[in-house]
Amino acid sequence: MNQMENASSGARLKRSQPLPLRSVHIEDRFWSDYIRLVRDVVVPYQWEALNDRVPGAEPSHAIRNLRIAAGDEEGSFYGMVFQDSDVSKWLEAAGYLLATEDDPALALIAEEVIDLLARAQQPDGYLNTYFTLKEPGKRWTNLNECHELYCAGHLIEAAVSYYTATGNAVVLGIARRFADYIATVFGPEDAGKLQGYDGHQEIELALVKLYRVTGDKKYLSLSQFFLDQRGTQPHFYKQEWDRRGGSVHFPGLLMSQNYAYSQAHLPVREQNTAEGHAVRLVYMSAGMADVAAETGDAELLAACRKLWRNIVTKRMYITGGIGSMTHGESFTFDYDLPSDTVYAETCASIGLIFFAWRMLQYEPVSSEYADVLERALYNTVVSGMSRDGRHFFYVNPLEVHPASCAHNHNYKHVKPERQGWFGCACCPPNIARLLASLGQYIYTVQDRTLYTHLYIGGQMDWELDGQRVHIVQESDYAWNGKVAMKVEQIERIEQSGHSEQNEHTEQNDAQAEFTLSLRIPSWCGGRYHIQVNGSAVTANEGTPGSGYVDLKRIWQAGDVVNIAFEMPVLRMKGHPLIRDTIGKTALQRGPFVYCMEEADNGANLHQIMLTSEGETDVRFDPGLLGGLSVITAAAERVGSADWQEDAPLYTSEGSWARSPMTATFIPYYAWANRGVGEMAVWVRDSV
Amino acid sequence: MNQMENASSGARLKRSQPLPLRSVHIEDRFWSDYIRLVRDVVVPYQWEALNDRVPGAEPSHAIRNLRIAAGDEEGSFYGMVFQDSDVSKWLEAAGYLLATEDDPALALIAEEVIDLLARAQQPDGYLNTYFTLKEPGKRWTNLNECHELYCAGHLIEAAVSYYTATGNAVVLGIARRFADYIATVFGPEDAGKLQGYDGHQEIELALVKLYRVTGDKKYLSLSQFFLDQRGTQPHFYKQEWDRRGGSVHFPGLLMSQNYAYSQAHLPVREQNTAEGHAVRLVYMSAGMADVAAETGDAELLAACRKLWRNIVTKRMYITGGIGSMTHGESFTFDYDLPSDTVYAETCASIGLIFFAWRMLQYEPVSSEYADVLERALYNTVVSGMSRDGRHFFYVNPLEVHPASCAHNHNYKHVKPERQGWFGCACCPPNIARLLASLGQYIYTVQDRTLYTHLYIGGQMDWELDGQRVHIVQESDYAWNGKVAMKVEQIERIEQSGHSEQNEHTEQNDAQAEFTLSLRIPSWCGGRYHIQVNGSAVTANEGTPGSGYVDLKRIWQAGDVVNIAFEMPVLRMKGHPLIRDTIGKTALQRGPFVYCMEEADNGANLHQIMLTSEGETDVRFDPGLLGGLSVITAAAERVGSADWQEDAPLYTSEGSWARSPMTATFIPYYAWANRGVGEMAVWVRDSV
Repeated sequence: MNQMENASSGARLKRSQPLPLRSVHIEDRFWSDYIRLVRDVVVPYQWEALNDRVPGAEPSHAIRNLRIAAGDEEGSFYGMVFQDSDVSKWLEAAGYLLATEDDPALALIAEEVIDLLARAQQPDGYLNTYFTLKEPGKRWTNLNECHELYCAGHLIEAAVSYYTATGNAVVLGIARRFADYIATVFGPEDAGKLQGYDGHQEIELALVKLYRVTGDKKYLSLSQFFLDQRGTQPHFYKQEWDRRGGSVHFPGLLMSQNYAYSQAHLPVREQNTAEGHAVRLVYMSAGMADVAAETGDAELLAACRKLWRNIVTKRMYITGGIGSMTHGESFTFDYDLPSDTVYAETCASIGLIFFAWRMLQYEPVSSEYADVLERALYNTVVSGMSRDGRHFFYVNPLEVHPASCAHNHNYKHVKPERQGWFGCACCPPNIARLLASLGQYIYTVQDRTLYTHLYIGGQMDWELDGQRVHIVQESDYAWNGKVAMKVEQIERIEQSGHSEQNEHTEQNDAQAEFTLSLRIPSWCGGRYHIQVNGSAVTANEGTPGSGYVDLKRIWQAGDVVNIAFEMPVLRMKGHPLIRDTIGKTALQRGPFVYCMEEADNGANLHQIMLTSEGETDVRFDPGLLGGLSVITAAAERVGSADWQEDAPLYTSEGSWARSPMTATFIPYYAWANRGVGEMAVWVRDSV
Repeated sequence: MNQMENASSGARLKRSQPLPLRSVHIEDRFWSDYIRLVRDVVVPYQWEALNDRVPGAEPSHAIRNLRIAAGDEEGSFYGMVFQDSDVSKWLEAAGYLLATEDDPALALIAEEVIDLLARAQQPDGYLNTYFTLKEPGKRWTNLNECHELYCAGHLIEAAVSYYTATGNAVVLGIARRFADYIATVFGPEDAGKLQGYDGHQEIELALVKLYRVTGDKKYLSLSQFFLDQRGTQPHFYKQEWDRRGGSVHFPGLLMSQNYAYSQAHLPVREQNTAEGHAVRLVYMSAGMADVAAETGDAELLAACRKLWRNIVTKRMYITGGIGSMTHGESFTFDYDLPSDTVYAETCASIGLIFFAWRMLQYEPVSSEYADVLERALYNTVVSGMSRDGRHFFYVNPLEVHPASCAHNHNYKHVKPERQGWFGCACCPPNIARLLASLGQYIYTVQDRTLYTHLYIGGQMDWELDGQRVHIVQESDYAWNGKVAMKVEQIERIEQSGHSEQNEHTEQNDAQAEFTLSLRIPSWCGGRYHIQVNGSAVTANEGTPGSGYVDLKRIWQAGDVVNIAFEMPVLRMKGHPLIRDTIGKTALQRGPFVYCMEEADNGANLHQIMLTSEGETDVRFDPGLLGGLSVITAAAERVGSADWQEDAPLYTSEGSWARSPMTATFIPYYAWANRGVGEMAVWVRDSV
């Protein structure tokens, strides 16, 4: 029982906490379009897909599986072992959307889904259509490969999201019954339970969410149990494999062969480097951070920090992508960051955001977490979805040569165009649930401090000691680094009721003392101007180029903070131990990493070389791909003119004429919207 | 019958012909060691392997398969479908060795093998232990995948080699009976025969060898038939696949899925680019060139030229490697020549030599063929074998980072060290048969012209109109570009007998008129000095940097030609359409391409940059890896000193200190002999 009890020992970490999602409304020049797309296109389209109503798309069968399990219709299971999780991810996104905007039609569908889930749930609380329909009697026999607890995790996340948004007790009951049942199956040996854990981490972070919403420590303990069992000896995956007589579900895949693929090669506290499947690693790390926060387990938090540092200082792309290799969609080794054969799955960057967001709350404030979160969000994640909301990147290369994708097998996984909904549809619903909940990533609060991590326009309400502080953020951050934060109202909240629904404002007492803590993004190099009500303030500048600036004062309604971050075109260099970026430069401006495309620069991008310390120019093009800032830079092209098509491949005599040119760069997220062509983030540079 | 008859239409192409292997004896500073290694180590070791007597090595079972087929012992077939071909390749190499040096012990073993082959041969002439033992009744049902005619081809090549060396009629009889039987099975539809052809080309060139040694045009016609059937519609592989009910022998492999893999996607005359498995392509091309030469088929020769030009101007590595991709061990597309994920199989470069050697004989003299032959021979082929003769490269990368080989799946096929004998042992016996027959690649003769293509020291005899011209070549070509060719003797041959055995020299009449045509290697840039008997001669210089110089005179015994090719260190550039070599330089000196190794330059070779137009120096190091010339070059290293291990991966603020250094280069063939480490052929350069 020791491990179970550990959960209640130690003190909670002091942390800043996100505001309820319903308290933040985004109205942003850059982001509103994307969020609208999620609401109007992605989530409805996903619903059609789950119901097999998308012409030409591979059937999902996910809703039918549930209907069959519920006894609504006859038939057999179809799909992946984790097919149920697609329904859960949809429901989770629907919950976030309902938290921020009423949508009775969406709520009606969601409640039908909840009703279906309730009827598909087994009497003991178990809910997984693959095992119920296809392998009855085989529950918990192949945790390594079969995603049973992973699916449970997504169901729990969905339930917490939907319950938080709507107060719907049915969905929370489904999740609790399932989690309660799981707690009877898994636990310490001396309680006669299974000492297993899932091959795809997910339930760990979900159980902490369930604990937070219910207050039931059993869920926290179970999460901690799963984390602490992972990678211990004798090895559970070997034991269950023996019990199955050596049978495997995915014979060709790595899961059963390579425990590091699932981060089960070592106990989690002993893992010093980010190994294996990238999505699994960051989901696990997020769960570890959650448990550490709730239990005060400093060793576990230190383990999170080790993994974080390994990722951000040795295994992350400049776009916030992670996972260098398609084989296993996985990490490889330090400084191995090929631009072209890269995997950098959209889901992995979303998971990195989950991890960063937790560390940002739990660790003494360091803007590095938000910097990385922003890097992943504005580059890999936005890149993952087309502007029609119907096409997605799973793989996010930093260099693309379409003929290689077509003819060289090493690039087979790299697509030069966004693809329609896949059979294994992990990334689109993950983008949907992230963007639908984007509001919660902007601010956190702790005591009397309001941290602003992201500069995304909109409104927010903060309840502070019986007062409600209403702030409007007007943001031109993405393209110009300019933000205005206006304290719109400060009201006393009448204490007559518990819930927000019952509040009545008494009077506008119009002032409150608190600290507005503003993140200084690293890309401004510590160069920024902050004014309060038109007067420059002397700010605590912290480390140049990073950290947070604290504005502590008695704020009045009508106060306005104006922030201007300098936004130069940065010539970014990779660490000299990265083989792929040596001798190359990537342009970055503000949160956006830039790239060259064939559409602007012609084919053979590899021939383009930036002029050393050459001029760069920025102009906003409102007509281009929804409006974006284009960078032009002085460059040269190594000409092929004096090399005929039929010339010798190798010669010591050819001289390479260089022709001056102007190279054109667009933000990485906007690539691949103008037909199939080459793309490159890193460009040769003579410096 | 038309296609069969085509073979006898048209005139033979006028061509220069190789000298009999027995007429050339190599005594060369660079090559003799390698040939000695083949004789003393590789061929004996291979014999042990074929007999499953190499401790720790995967069993071959190849001799046992034959013994079982011969009824000498009980048992069942074991090995690949093409296991028999290993015995044939061994016998072919043994034949070449016996042609150049008496070796009664080797001959005794070889004749036992021949006896075994004779007894394993079926009454109708068929000889293939896989089908005889494992799939009786299934002959010729899966030409696409099962290498049946491929094995027949290797048997024929072995027989021709051994017969030519020793006059052994038994082995030739085995091959003829098999070929005669094959000719009853394959042929035009109106003769009621199969219109198939093998999935691995090989028999095509072998049948022309058999034709040349027997004079029986049936074999030439059959070769032509196989070539002309290839890739025609209705597609034979589809037809036989249908007849098999869709069963495949290698379910995971490309053979049955992708006809281009076997160059069967189009008729051979319509193939404009080198596609698919590289070894198959060059074996096929060699066969096409042979048939074209014998039939005077200009269209077929033109097809050879198309493939040749595509390879050498768009799809060949600077080391003479071909096949850019491990998937299918195959060509990809024009200018796609990655240095690191490369395949460049040793066997493919050997096949390229086969192809080049034929084109060199059949085409109006162009030194390009010999240039490419030399490039492949001195770089990829020699690199393929360790200096102990027991370790081999199958894959010949131009850039190696050992951690990538260990941890990044894209490099799994790339080995940083030569490997022991493999289960599928294609490359080692191919190296053995090439080096054992190297003598025939040095000279060809046509009318009264003696072409010297390679400058490899030793002696040769040329029978010219009843005279025997005996020339000694003393070569310091490899390291210093210096060659002396001495006309040692000119003798009249007594015409008493037909065969060489019966010759008696009458008297040394000491003079003969002929043309000595000397290849000018492209790497000397047209800068060379030729003296005859100490006097500079005005030579026909041809195109600067290439072509042949003709020295036509009445040669006397004692005449000496001294040739000195200038051998500067060449800074080679790749065509600007090659993405992988842009901004990089490879050093070449004489026939050798050079590389940097970690052993000389430390780790992180990617940080090294050649100084633009910096000094280079050459010194011969007699103690290094058997003696070789080392090049040193002024360079700079981008320092990591100001980037801590834990520094941000990407920054706009870091400056890269460059430290001057001297970069050390060794010939490519000698890499990977000093422990596991990084290697790079292409080095960054600011020019």
